[in-house]
Amino acid sequence: MPSTIIDSAIFQGIFSSDAMRRVWSDENRTQKYLDIERALAVVQGRLGLIPQEAADEIVSHCRLDQIDMAKLRQQTERIGYPILGVVSQLNALCRDKLGEYCHWGATTQDITDTATVLQIREGLAIVDDELAAISAAMAKLAKQHRDTPMIGRSNLQQAIPVTFGYKMAGLLSAIERHRERLDQLKSRVLVGEFAGAAGTLASLQTGAMETQAGLCAELGLAQPVIAWHTIRDNIAEVGAFLGLVGGTLGKLSMDVKLMMQTEVGEVYEPYAHGRGSSSTMPQKRNPISSCYIHAAISVVRQHAAALMDAMVADHERSTGPWEIEWIVLPEAFCLMAGALKQSRFVLEGLEVDAVQMRKNIDMTHGLVMSEAVMMGLGPYIGREYAHDLVYDICRDAVKQQRPLLDLLAEHPEINRHLDRAALAALCDPANYLGQSGVMVDRVLATLR
Amino acid sequence: MPSTIIDSAIFQGIFSSDAMRRVWSDENRTQKYLDIERALAVVQGRLGLIPQEAADEIVSHCRLDQIDMAKLRQQTERIGYPILGVVSQLNALCRDKLGEYCHWGATTQDITDTATVLQIREGLAIVDDELAAISAAMAKLAKQHRDTPMIGRSNLQQAIPVTFGYKMAGLLSAIERHRERLDQLKSRVLVGEFAGAAGTLASLQTGAMETQAGLCAELGLAQPVIAWHTIRDNIAEVGAFLGLVGGTLGKLSMDVKLMMQTEVGEVYEPYAHGRGSSSTMPQKRNPISSCYIHAAISVVRQHAAALMDAMVADHERSTGPWEIEWIVLPEAFCLMAGALKQSRFVLEGLEVDAVQMRKNIDMTHGLVMSEAVMMGLGPYIGREYAHDLVYDICRDAVKQQRPLLDLLAEHPEINRHLDRAALAALCDPANYLGQSGVMVDRVLATLR
Amino acid sequence: MPSTIIDSAIFQGIFSSDAMRRVWSDENRTQKYLDIERALAVVQGRLGLIPQEAADEIVSHCRLDQIDMAKLRQQTERIGYPILGVVSQLNALCRDKLGEYCHWGATTQDITDTATVLQIREGLAIVDDELAAISAAMAKLAKQHRDTPMIGRSNLQQAIPVTFGYKMAGLLSAIERHRERLDQLKSRVLVGEFAGAAGTLASLQTGAMETQAGLCAELGLAQPVIAWHTIRDNIAEVGAFLGLVGGTLGKLSMDVKLMMQTEVGEVYEPYAHGRGSSSTMPQKRNPISSCYIHAAISVVRQHAAALMDAMVADHERSTGPWEIEWIVLPEAFCLMAGALKQSRFVLEGLEVDAVQMRKNIDMTHGLVMSEAVMMGLGPYIGREYAHDLVYDICRDAVKQQRPLLDLLAEHPEINRHLDRAALAALCDPANYLGQSGVMVDRVLATLR
Amino acid sequence: MPSTIIDSAIFQGIFSSDAMRRVWSDENRTQKYLDIERALAVVQGRLGLIPQEAADEIVSHCRLDQIDMAKLRQQTERIGYPILGVVSQLNALCRDKLGEYCHWGATTQDITDTATVLQIREGLAIVDDELAAISAAMAKLAKQHRDTPMIGRSNLQQAIPVTFGYKMAGLLSAIERHRERLDQLKSRVLVGEFAGAAGTLASLQTGAMETQAGLCAELGLAQPVIAWHTIRDNIAEVGAFLGLVGGTLGKLSMDVKLMMQTEVGEVYEPYAHGRGSSSTMPQKRNPISSCYIHAAISVVRQHAAALMDAMVADHERSTGPWEIEWIVLPEAFCLMAGALKQSRFVLEGLEVDAVQMRKNIDMTHGLVMSEAVMMGLGPYIGREYAHDLVYDICRDAVKQQRPLLDLLAEHPEINRHLDRAALAALCDPANYLGQSGVMVDRVLATLR
Repeated sequence: MPSTIIDSAIFQGIFSSDAMRRVWSDENRTQKYLDIERALAVVQGRLGLIPQEAADEIVSHCRLDQIDMAKLRQQTERIGYPILGVVSQLNALCRDKLGEYCHWGATTQDITDTATVLQIREGLAIVDDELAAISAAMAKLAKQHRDTPMIGRSNLQQAIPVTFGYKMAGLLSAIERHRERLDQLKSRVLVGEFAGAAGTLASLQTGAMETQAGLCAELGLAQPVIAWHTIRDNIAEVGAFLGLVGGTLGKLSMDVKLMMQTEVGEVYEPYAHGRGSSSTMPQKRNPISSCYIHAAISVVRQHAAALMDAMVADHERSTGPWEIEWIVLPEAFCLMAGALKQSRFVLEGLEVDAVQMRKNIDMTHGLVMSEAVMMGLGPYIGREYAHDLVYDICRDAVKQQRPLLDLLAEHPEINRHLDRAALAALCDPANYLGQSGVMVDRVLATLR
Repeated sequence: MPSTIIDSAIFQGIFSSDAMRRVWSDENRTQKYLDIERALAVVQGRLGLIPQEAADEIVSHCRLDQIDMAKLRQQTERIGYPILGVVSQLNALCRDKLGEYCHWGATTQDITDTATVLQIREGLAIVDDELAAISAAMAKLAKQHRDTPMIGRSNLQQAIPVTFGYKMAGLLSAIERHRERLDQLKSRVLVGEFAGAAGTLASLQTGAMETQAGLCAELGLAQPVIAWHTIRDNIAEVGAFLGLVGGTLGKLSMDVKLMMQTEVGEVYEPYAHGRGSSSTMPQKRNPISSCYIHAAISVVRQHAAALMDAMVADHERSTGPWEIEWIVLPEAFCLMAGALKQSRFVLEGLEVDAVQMRKNIDMTHGLVMSEAVMMGLGPYIGREYAHDLVYDICRDAVKQQRPLLDLLAEHPEINRHLDRAALAALCDPANYLGQSGVMVDRVLATLR
Repeated sequence: MPSTIIDSAIFQGIFSSDAMRRVWSDENRTQKYLDIERALAVVQGRLGLIPQEAADEIVSHCRLDQIDMAKLRQQTERIGYPILGVVSQLNALCRDKLGEYCHWGATTQDITDTATVLQIREGLAIVDDELAAISAAMAKLAKQHRDTPMIGRSNLQQAIPVTFGYKMAGLLSAIERHRERLDQLKSRVLVGEFAGAAGTLASLQTGAMETQAGLCAELGLAQPVIAWHTIRDNIAEVGAFLGLVGGTLGKLSMDVKLMMQTEVGEVYEPYAHGRGSSSTMPQKRNPISSCYIHAAISVVRQHAAALMDAMVADHERSTGPWEIEWIVLPEAFCLMAGALKQSRFVLEGLEVDAVQMRKNIDMTHGLVMSEAVMMGLGPYIGREYAHDLVYDICRDAVKQQRPLLDLLAEHPEINRHLDRAALAALCDPANYLGQSGVMVDRVLATLR
Repeated sequence: MPSTIIDSAIFQGIFSSDAMRRVWSDENRTQKYLDIERALAVVQGRLGLIPQEAADEIVSHCRLDQIDMAKLRQQTERIGYPILGVVSQLNALCRDKLGEYCHWGATTQDITDTATVLQIREGLAIVDDELAAISAAMAKLAKQHRDTPMIGRSNLQQAIPVTFGYKMAGLLSAIERHRERLDQLKSRVLVGEFAGAAGTLASLQTGAMETQAGLCAELGLAQPVIAWHTIRDNIAEVGAFLGLVGGTLGKLSMDVKLMMQTEVGEVYEPYAHGRGSSSTMPQKRNPISSCYIHAAISVVRQHAAALMDAMVADHERSTGPWEIEWIVLPEAFCLMAGALKQSRFVLEGLEVDAVQMRKNIDMTHGLVMSEAVMMGLGPYIGREYAHDLVYDICRDAVKQQRPLLDLLAEHPEINRHLDRAALAALCDPANYLGQSGVMVDRVLATLR
């Protein structure tokens, strides 16, 4: 009986992905606890801090199928945290009280934090893969439509032509920066925690730092420079990163939504039977994926703020702020997995209607080419005069509902310098794409 | 395999309540869809808009156990929304194509919105009950400790005495205002939605408004003055209300946490074996519930902002903003249910240590009574002179680590006016509680 | 040298209003301090708690022009709060040490909180006036365009017709609810604070509650039931209210922006020379006011969350949370004043292009009327069959780029039942406006 | 008449810094516009795109004192943006219409964005300096108190000893990571914008990319790979960075506040006459700076979310989202400058009371050493048995209010193995500091 949309049996495939939900599942989290207790026993056995026999016995029981999850819930509700429950179950599974050597020198939060980092590693791997796929899909669209003219819009007004490839390349440049951010934050975030009750590892009289180093190595994590039980910039940075990625996906979904408008019709989310269509309104083609992206990333940016709030921890182990992370981190990852999945789906199957793009450029009868015309006439009649003249002609074109080209070609001050063919060239959007293609190439050149 | 902390098999009892999770469950939401389709058929049968036979047939199938939930997930992922799936299943269940009359004139969002309102009604009823219980528990503590002196604190510094009852009464005054807010918002929020594709009910050529009125009456909801598919101040108001309640619970948890500090020790969350205690640190008594309250309400205030974001809907049916509600509303209610439950638990079993409260008043050797002494001496030696004199004596008391009373009694300018007994009375916190009791009484008098 | 956009000499007229900035100015805030000290002296003189001579002397100096603002900044930076500086300056202004009776029994936060409430009262009065004006402008548009057909849109897709009046009436219904909310919150918010160091009024040995009652009466505020130094649901409620109003204005601006698109062109923000136009792109008509509204309200909803955060106060006088209000409250009011002003400007001068609205309905060659056609054919050929048939014909209409009416009139299964004129009536949007007008009337009927 | 707390003549010195307010002032922003127009003229003159004479003339007028700011406000309110106003004033200042060559090929947002980046560069330089100073102050405290024992606290309960140096080193590790983040983001953020109406630089028929490259070089910025008018991850990343730094300062302020409590008294904000003291309560020493830090960073994290919201831009030039940055970015920087200034002030003058720290360790009569005792007795009587025995003795110590050491020394099962001196050593916090010193050294070793 799930109550959240993320875990809903009905909606889970829409707002998240199975892979990401698995990362943050009870099962995986508990398995991570066991992986860490296992690695700890291995390392401390190797260092001679606990008997090798104990290490072996503990290791043999660090398997999820040996844990009674119903009992774990009871233990967790009673104690407030699940770790002690896992350790006591593990202890009971071991023969000859060898389980006493389990969790040696560790505190609850050591295991929880390290498990979270292991989950983050898996979560970021999914994000990484999705970003790579999105990057590839955007690059393909950018290349393919490097020179496909469409109208550029400013303040939701038609401005001057751009290309669809240029539009994609802009988004792609952000995706590439996100991948760079992800690479850079890993060394700060993928760090283990093993520090004892107040972070000082006083619980281990010998071999403290060696255990910490060995445990982190065993788990493939970096060793912390100092305990971070209440120093949470790493976790908050992950939230901020997800929020930033969300912003870019939000911009993508905004543009897709706007371009899919009935009145615009330039691109379409991939068609799937029944998806986003209406049973009574055959003209509708709803931007369903874009809706989900918009919603998910709008929530994730608030999660990013909540994770910054969680940084305001007290003393050596915090009283409330830490638990903000428990709530928010899984959701932020799950929602982002949904948004990434939907974005990738949209991009990999996007239908681009270049004909309609061209029609939209023409819908103002050439007015969107006025800047080009002004600049083209400048050398002949002076820039300022050209501006004023063309501006006036444009008003007439609007009033008379006639093509700008016709009025230009009729105008004696203009046709004395340029004939209709030359003016038509000035009015051709393909001749006023500026550096669209160059910029596409520049972005593509940055791809790894 | 739940992935959110709210649905986690391990944590669900901590961060939410079973009753609230049930309200937002797939089962209850789907049942609400069926309740509404049922009510619609009943009303339209009665109005003669659909055949009575069809109404009866539809009604007979509006039961959750007839719905194939796995199939519903597939339908939802394909279409993007679950309503059409429910309707098509219902349709298939009905004999003789009578199911065609199901969902007559309705649009997807009509059913979804009305279902949400029905869930909100159930959710608010839980909140209402919890607020009443919290109010009662606070009132009991306020009455019981109306005159129990404790130190008042300003900027985390001991200031002058208050009573513990006064502290509770302050919180109680806010809870009572929340109950008033809840009463007031109901008429704006508990309103049905039945409006058709663009809100105009064009889908029903006759009996449109009568159906709307009848459906709302059947469900015990108010009739909307106009469609609210994209007018979402009602939903956002619920989020804001939950956020405001959260703020008060956050203040409660903050004070409990601070009073439970080892160095303060004035109150304790109810004791339960193993709960909030440490296996190696017997001195610890962790404010576990307060931690959970703090975390939950910190997230809910971000949800409140997200629901305001969801108000920025486009045209007649929004493209993304609506789905923000789907994610956020269930979570905000579930987390608040957890925070309310934990708050109630804390308040109903709170251990109050009046002896330690008194000890803390005395720990500055009387300095916290300096304001009282200044005011008491004023009539004899002038207010300003009394201030300066007492301030100097206080510094001496700190330096010498001696009780303020002793130094006052020794001072010739003072003992000429007041003897030690009179000075002791000035230094008695019980004599400087001001209007604490009166204010407690004033708050209690507002209770219904 | 202002650094915020609100106080910027360049931008202040855009993002706020002069009237609202005046409310939150240093001058007005300081004047409020003086008004309160004045009222306190008046009341305490009347009650005989301070000499009448002192009261008169204090009253005579409670004028802003007697305060040295530069000195006040120094005092504030040294002490951390401005009240003590104001009181000490006032004290120095009074003859014969009569100023000693100033601020009698009060604490810094008493004056600050009460001043804030007085500023809130002025701020809410401005909001109230703007909401009334916006309501009037919307009502006028709703009435005027009660029957002006335009296409309704769902998921940014053309759906079925509505009227522009209906669109306005939906927004109007929310504005009216906001006005109701505002009325209801006043009794909770417009409450004075006078409670002394820890809220108990121990500072006044006699006449404590009488002073509190008298002071509040003098200032036209309600008397608090208990001190609210750290019980801040009232302030947070104001923030939530502003955030909710912002959501509605955001929806308004979203629709205006979308309707002003070059490809849509249904409404325009009021024209002002140079405003929102481009020097080189004559086709542009930028929705400048809508931009400002969008930005302002997006920030205010974050402010609403911050004010809920500020509720998590500690003990009797909080250590940081209170100061959140100092930062956020003035900005939330100032930004909302800007958003309200811009919204009112848009609404009072909105250009509505009913011709273009009609053209847009027709742009799909009748597809948006398919629901109407299905329903109209139902009685003749069966609802389900009608649905499938019309759906197929619609696809043909799209493929052939021909009007739906033509294809319908040509179809033998259809023209046997209905002739072209009857089919044309089915395809006429004016015949498929449903309850648009009725709903407009219902909303207008709720106006006071 | 400023209305924001940041620009308030009274509060500006508290909530921001003069240097940072100058960065975001009207004057500096307008000067940046002129710097960019100047650089553009220089580069285009050099490239031969505009006459050298025009370049020289324009350059000679790019001085703030030539701009009429009152007129600029009027122009801005009329047009909606200030750039056109600046350009037209500049134009008017130039002789012989040479000013026509000003702003050649640029669009409003090119200048605004580049100006913002130049302001960000200045703002980040201030942040950088403050972080360096804070790092140095923390390092000094960490070194100085590497071995100063204090109690570590978990859930606001005394746990086991740490050192004050360890506490500082934890915070220091975060500050160092923030400096690393700042270094890394510069290459993404300190990038110019010069792209024309829709980002394609179509406005320059020749020399487009050369102008862009030259302009960026002239201003010391990196050249963008593509236009970023509506690709705003860079700006949002700055906001996220400030929010993350804020989180760490918030944690610092939280710990200072808690340690300054009357009941704790371990550290004090620097003393300044009158600052944070009460005129009637001599025992008070308010954590004034910590209050301001707490408030400022609580708002900045919401700003971070708002800047992620601003990323959801539409098409080539956004309609509202961009203006969110105008409001939020200056405030986030100004508030952070205040928080950094206050943090530095606290750290550079922090009073540390090592004696009181030691007293607090002892206040539980040794209970906080129970873990140490358990571990010390383990080798003699078995770990588990030691645990249970010590736990029982601890309860007795609490009941009898006697030192744990006394009870241990009296116990026959214990004193047979260890004499009082040996037990006293186990109970000595200095012997149970674990790796506190080692961790301090590790953090200090990372400093540059």
